Amino acid sequence: MRVGILTIGNELISGRTQDTNTSHVARELNIQGWQVPILMSVDDDEAAIKTALDHILTQADAVIVTGGLGPTTDDKTTEAIARAYGLKLYRDEAILAKIKAIFDRYGLYWAPNNAKQADFPEGAEPIVNPVGTAWGFSLNVQGKLIAVLPGVPAEMKRMLSQGVLPVLRRTFPEAAQAVATRTLKLSGISEAEVDQRLADADLEGQGVAVGFYPHFPEIRVVLTVRKATDAEAQALLKSAVAQVISRLEHHIFAYDQETLEGTVAALLTERKLTLSIAESCTGGLVTDRLTDISGSSVFLERSAVTYSNLAKTELLGVPEETLREYGAVSEPTARLMAEGVRKLGHTDLGLSTTGVAGPTGGSEQKPVGTVFVALADGRETICRKYLFRWERRRVKVAASQAALTMLKRYLISILE
Amino acid sequence: MRVGILTIGNELISGRTQDTNTSHVARELNIQGWQVPILMSVDDDEAAIKTALDHILTQADAVIVTGGLGPTTDDKTTEAIARAYGLKLYRDEAILAKIKAIFDRYGLYWAPNNAKQADFPEGAEPIVNPVGTAWGFSLNVQGKLIAVLPGVPAEMKRMLSQGVLPVLRRTFPEAAQAVATRTLKLSGISEAEVDQRLADADLEGQGVAVGFYPHFPEIRVVLTVRKATDAEAQALLKSAVAQVISRLEHHIFAYDQETLEGTVAALLTERKLTLSIAESCTGGLVTDRLTDISGSSVFLERSAVTYSNLAKTELLGVPEETLREYGAVSEPTARLMAEGVRKLGHTDLGLSTTGVAGPTGGSEQKPVGTVFVALADGRETICRKYLFRWERRRVKVAASQAALTMLKRYLISILE
Repeated sequence: MRVGILTIGNELISGRTQDTNTSHVARELNIQGWQVPILMSVDDDEAAIKTALDHILTQADAVIVTGGLGPTTDDKTTEAIARAYGLKLYRDEAILAKIKAIFDRYGLYWAPNNAKQADFPEGAEPIVNPVGTAWGFSLNVQGKLIAVLPGVPAEMKRMLSQGVLPVLRRTFPEAAQAVATRTLKLSGISEAEVDQRLADADLEGQGVAVGFYPHFPEIRVVLTVRKATDAEAQALLKSAVAQVISRLEHHIFAYDQETLEGTVAALLTERKLTLSIAESCTGGLVTDRLTDISGSSVFLERSAVTYSNLAKTELLGVPEETLREYGAVSEPTARLMAEGVRKLGHTDLGLSTTGVAGPTGGSEQKPVGTVFVALADGRETICRKYLFRWERRRVKVAASQAALTMLKRYLISILE
Repeated sequence: MRVGILTIGNELISGRTQDTNTSHVARELNIQGWQVPILMSVDDDEAAIKTALDHILTQADAVIVTGGLGPTTDDKTTEAIARAYGLKLYRDEAILAKIKAIFDRYGLYWAPNNAKQADFPEGAEPIVNPVGTAWGFSLNVQGKLIAVLPGVPAEMKRMLSQGVLPVLRRTFPEAAQAVATRTLKLSGISEAEVDQRLADADLEGQGVAVGFYPHFPEIRVVLTVRKATDAEAQALLKSAVAQVISRLEHHIFAYDQETLEGTVAALLTERKLTLSIAESCTGGLVTDRLTDISGSSVFLERSAVTYSNLAKTELLGVPEETLREYGAVSEPTARLMAEGVRKLGHTDLGLSTTGVAGPTGGSEQKPVGTVFVALADGRETICRKYLFRWERRRVKVAASQAALTMLKRYLISILE
């Protein structure tokens, strides 16, 4: 069973936007055991869309289309598909009401052309958009399946997994194989090193597909197995995961949909521990990541982004002499920041970061990318020095990853 | 003159690798004024490559192909193209000698199949690879141009600019056009409303291509014009930009490569004003965005992420009665947070956010997405209430955008 992919939009063929939808959809299809013979992108143009669909459907049994479902005049996908297969458009009043309700609830301005998003080709099965107003649809024409999704990645991804992949399995049941997949998320190691450490396991030789997806600051290793039965697939996958863990355990921080911040939040909540954070070079990013987790207010008391030396002294009690003698980017400062913010927030734990994010501010002894991370629990304070290459944003991200990783390892160690 | 793009490789159609070659080639072609009607990717498979080329050349006068030029057996591009057009392969001994010389110089092992990289379809014009051993080639068939490059991005990019774009101009001299483009970044307005406000200008009617690209929390409006000369293109673009500004000025926060945080940072630096930030619902994101700008330590003194009520009282001096009477998510609290953090940091300005990020914590009076943003300068404190839809992360991002926008408008108003 072959499934082609068509992404639509002038921003793609002009090269203005990097098309990330295609690789995401292709990856998801492969993971589910569907073959992908062709990927195509064309302009928001009726004739181009028709020609593209006709060609792809000579190569595939189904096509997943993304883009061109918005309310604006340059969004032509729905009309193009309807006309291409001689179908009338119908307006789904129930969906129109739902879209209008969203606009009302949030007091958004209702432009008449928004109604366009409730139009579908006759015979189409609407696909709900749980995070936006652009509904998608699937359509059977000439024994082939066409599934259409909006181009906004966050919306497309949700609708693909909830609204399209199930329809594919339903439409082509015989082609469905038992597929089992696991994603392992690693950090603090290079892609080449991961590859090398796994070489002797020869997972491919065992029938396990191994994919490496660098996703800064993570490396995602995706293991996929296809077998006749679920039981066989699960058994092989389990053994493959065990082989990876035995070689890379120290670097694995999460699995599948888990995130590092989510894991840390769960551990803090489970352990009923409270946290305060003092950030310098990370500029609030560590706290931003933790507060992305709903319920973080249970354990996160406060954070201080002490960008100036005065703030480090006033809020965290780092003595001026320490800053003078060792500098703001130093182990003594990092330790005192962690201990100081712990006292400031009256919490069980205090976490701190201080470093040189760059591109300026580096020195012989402390080049750009030098970062100290410290964690205080009232009994002891641990501190570690890192040296990251890369530009400013990536240094901040890598430093936040190091801080959350230190916290996670601490929480696991005291749980054991 | 239309130029299609074909990228070849199993890593692309499996979604294992993000294809960055396509957008690079598309961008370069557009900048040079060539139209790109179609982008395609297929597997390293002779039949698939032939079918793809045939289809693309029905849509375009030329095609740029990348990938499948390596020495290994899964690299089939050259043979596939030769067979597709009934051409014999010839081995270029001079190029073979050059490739061998590279292996000698670096003491690399010479595998016989490396010689394959010196094979070309008869009639092909080799394209030198200045940074590798995989030469490319261009070929005229049936009045169409086929240019073939290796898939390694660093090699492909050099060869595209040095070996392909000049050949295109030489082959289709009459078609070269001047292109001018401008990106306007807007927020606080829906895509549909932007579209409607621009409708009466009828920019398309004036020969201006208008693209809308939602890029949460921004909407990017990209204007592109093609003219015979640079002067004409620039003149038309300038008038088009002016027409958009006259209709949407209030919502435009940046142009082209500019960012909101970058604009705010430049204004603060220029005005020699210092800033402290008190964040609740945004959890450090406002500070994170500002500290992405190198040199932000000049104006950013400190930030307090006061997630708990106690932190709001202790650090910012928000009275417990205020929190009891109006709640942490309220205009009085937001105002006192901005004023409090300004005092705490001894700065010219104090900025604050407090709201319900969700998914829990909403109420009848204060549903999820309710956010208050305040800005204090010591003379007056301004505060505004927002209601954002969307899930937790997007509420945080939209709230940080609102806070930075309020700050930017304040800074511009006092500069005038």
